[in-house]
Amino acid sequence: MRIPLLTLQEELQRVLEKFDFTPERAAHCARLFAETDRDGVYSHGLNRFARFIQYIQKAYVVPGAEPVLEFNQGGLERWNGQQGPGNLNARAAMDQAVALARQFGIGSVAVRNTNHWMRGGSYGWQAADAGCVALCFTNTLPNMPPWGGKSPALGNNPFVMAVPRSNGQHVVLDMAMSQYSYGKLRKYVEAGQDLPVPGGYDAAGNLTRNAATIEETERALPVGFWKGSGLSMLLDLMAGILSGGRTTADIGQLADEYGVSQVFICLDVSRFQDAAFTDALIDQTIAFTQKSTPVSPENAILYPGENVWRTRQENIRLGIPVDEAVWEQVRAM
Amino acid sequence: MRIPLLTLQEELQRVLEKFDFTPERAAHCARLFAETDRDGVYSHGLNRFARFIQYIQKAYVVPGAEPVLEFNQGGLERWNGQQGPGNLNARAAMDQAVALARQFGIGSVAVRNTNHWMRGGSYGWQAADAGCVALCFTNTLPNMPPWGGKSPALGNNPFVMAVPRSNGQHVVLDMAMSQYSYGKLRKYVEAGQDLPVPGGYDAAGNLTRNAATIEETERALPVGFWKGSGLSMLLDLMAGILSGGRTTADIGQLADEYGVSQVFICLDVSRFQDAAFTDALIDQTIAFTQKSTPVSPENAILYPGENVWRTRQENIRLGIPVDEAVWEQVRAM
Repeated sequence: MRIPLLTLQEELQRVLEKFDFTPERAAHCARLFAETDRDGVYSHGLNRFARFIQYIQKAYVVPGAEPVLEFNQGGLERWNGQQGPGNLNARAAMDQAVALARQFGIGSVAVRNTNHWMRGGSYGWQAADAGCVALCFTNTLPNMPPWGGKSPALGNNPFVMAVPRSNGQHVVLDMAMSQYSYGKLRKYVEAGQDLPVPGGYDAAGNLTRNAATIEETERALPVGFWKGSGLSMLLDLMAGILSGGRTTADIGQLADEYGVSQVFICLDVSRFQDAAFTDALIDQTIAFTQKSTPVSPENAILYPGENVWRTRQENIRLGIPVDEAVWEQVRAM
Repeated sequence: MRIPLLTLQEELQRVLEKFDFTPERAAHCARLFAETDRDGVYSHGLNRFARFIQYIQKAYVVPGAEPVLEFNQGGLERWNGQQGPGNLNARAAMDQAVALARQFGIGSVAVRNTNHWMRGGSYGWQAADAGCVALCFTNTLPNMPPWGGKSPALGNNPFVMAVPRSNGQHVVLDMAMSQYSYGKLRKYVEAGQDLPVPGGYDAAGNLTRNAATIEETERALPVGFWKGSGLSMLLDLMAGILSGGRTTADIGQLADEYGVSQVFICLDVSRFQDAAFTDALIDQTIAFTQKSTPVSPENAILYPGENVWRTRQENIRLGIPVDEAVWEQVRAM
C-alpha cells in the first residue's frame, strides 16, 4: 500500500513524542525517516523505525541529547554526540560543516559518541542542496572480515560523496564497504534468488552468490576484495582519530551498535564557480558515460543518485510504499 | 640487480637536468621517482621514467612550469598546474594543504592542468610525515567502462587516504578504482598466470581471471562492480569542479593523458590529539583485524602501507632492485 508522505511523517512524529522527543525534534527526526522512504531507501526508513524505538528503550539512543562542541580551530571541529538520535546529530553536523565551508571554504565536523545515521545519503543531499560538494562517513560494528581473515573485524563503514546541480538532481553516492549489506542478503534469501554478483564466501572459502551461505559464514565480501578491506580500515581510523571516539574495534566490545564515530567534510564551491559551470561539467560527464556501449540494449547506465531522484518524484506523486504490517505496527505504538 | 638509492636518484637527476630541469627541481623530481622504487612501487619509478621523458619531449609535461594560485578562501585553494611535472606539482599541493591545515585546521588544494602524479601514495606518506590525516585523488583518461556499459568512459582515478603514526609506519591506502591496473594485467599475461580474483569481462560478458582477455575487451572491472563505477565518477566530478579543470571526458579528447585534475585534502590532528592517542588507536585497530581467523595459516592480515614500510627498510639496506635493461637505458640517456 501507499500512503502520503505527510501522513507517514506525522505518524512517526506522534510516536517519537511519546518517547521524550520535543515536538520540534520529533518533527525533524520523523521527517528524516519519512524522506528516506520517499527516496526509496526502504531499509532505513519506516522499516527501521521499530528498531530505533527499541534502541531508545535500551538507552542506546538518548532522545533529548544534543551534540556539544569539544574542539574548534578554523574549519575543523570535534563534537560529542552524547548518544543522541543519529539522524538529528548527523543533520546538525553537516549543517555546521556547510557553515564552516561558507566561512573557511572548507569545513570538517567529526562527531564521537553518536548513533547510526540511518540513511547516509541524506547528508550528501543536504550538502548538495546547499550548493556544496561534500563527503561523509561513519564507522559501524565489526561485520566484515579483513582481507586474509575469515571472521568479522572491520565495519562496512558507509561512505557518501555528493556534488550539487542547480536543478536539485544532485549526484550522490552512498556506499557501504561490503558488496551487499546483511539486509540486502536477507532479501535475496527470502526471494530465493542468487545474488547478481558474488557477495561473499562459502565455508570452503570459495566466492558464492548464495546469500544464505554468506549469512552462515559471516564472510561478506569487501568491495574490490583487498581494496575495500583497506578502505574500510582507513575510514574507521579517520573517524576515530578526528572525533576522538570509538573505532569499530571499540564498538565491537559493546552489547550492540551505538556510540559510533562520524566525519562530515564540506567544500563551498559556490565561492569560485558559478552553478552554470558545475551544471555543464556534470551534464557532460553523465552524457559521456551514457555513451558507453551498453552491456545489453535494455541496460541503462545510471549515475549515482539517478534512481533516488526518479523514485522521489514517483513517491511524492503516488504516495510512499509501505509494508502494511509494519505500518500497522507503528500505528499501534 | 640492486643499486643504492642515492645512485638511482643521482642518475635520474642527471637526465632531468638535460631536459631543462633546474638542478634543484631535478633533484626533487628524481628523489620522488627514486623513493617510489625504494617503497616497492616499481610500476611508477624507474620503469616509468622513459615515458616521463617522452612526455616532456611531446610537451605534455613542461619541466620549468610551476603551479600558480588561482583562488583562495580560508582553507580552500585552486591552482593551475600549468602542465608542470605531476609529482612536483602534487608534492607542492600537499605541502600547501598541510600549511592550510596548520592554519585553518583543514585545507584543500585542487590543481587543474597538472600531470600524472606517478605514485599517489607518496602524497599520503608526505602528509602523514607532517602528522596529518589526508586524502587525495586524481582523475585519469577513460580506461574503465561504467557499470552497465562495455566501452571505457570512466577513469580508474586513484584515491589515497593516510593516517599518521609517530614511528613513521603510517597507514596509507593507495587504490585505483579498477580491480587491476592495465600494468598489473600485463604482468599476469607475461607470467602466464590467472588473476587471483576476477579482473574484468570476456567478450561474452562473463567475469574472467584471464588478464589477456581483459586487455582485449578493455572491460576492466571497477572495484565492487557498480560501487567502484559510482565512486570513480564522483572522484572525477569533484576533481573537475574543485579545480575547474579537465574531467575524464575532457582528457579523453586529448591525444594522450595530460593536463589532469587533482585534489589534496589535509586535516591537522596534532592540534587536538597527542600522538600517543593516535598511535594507540591505530595499534589497537591493526591488532583487532589481525585477530580475525586467518583464511589459511600462512596468510598474513596486512594493513594498508605495511608492505611499503617493510619493502622500504629492505631496499634501503640491500639497494633498490632495478631491471638491468631499463637501468642501462636511463644511463645512456
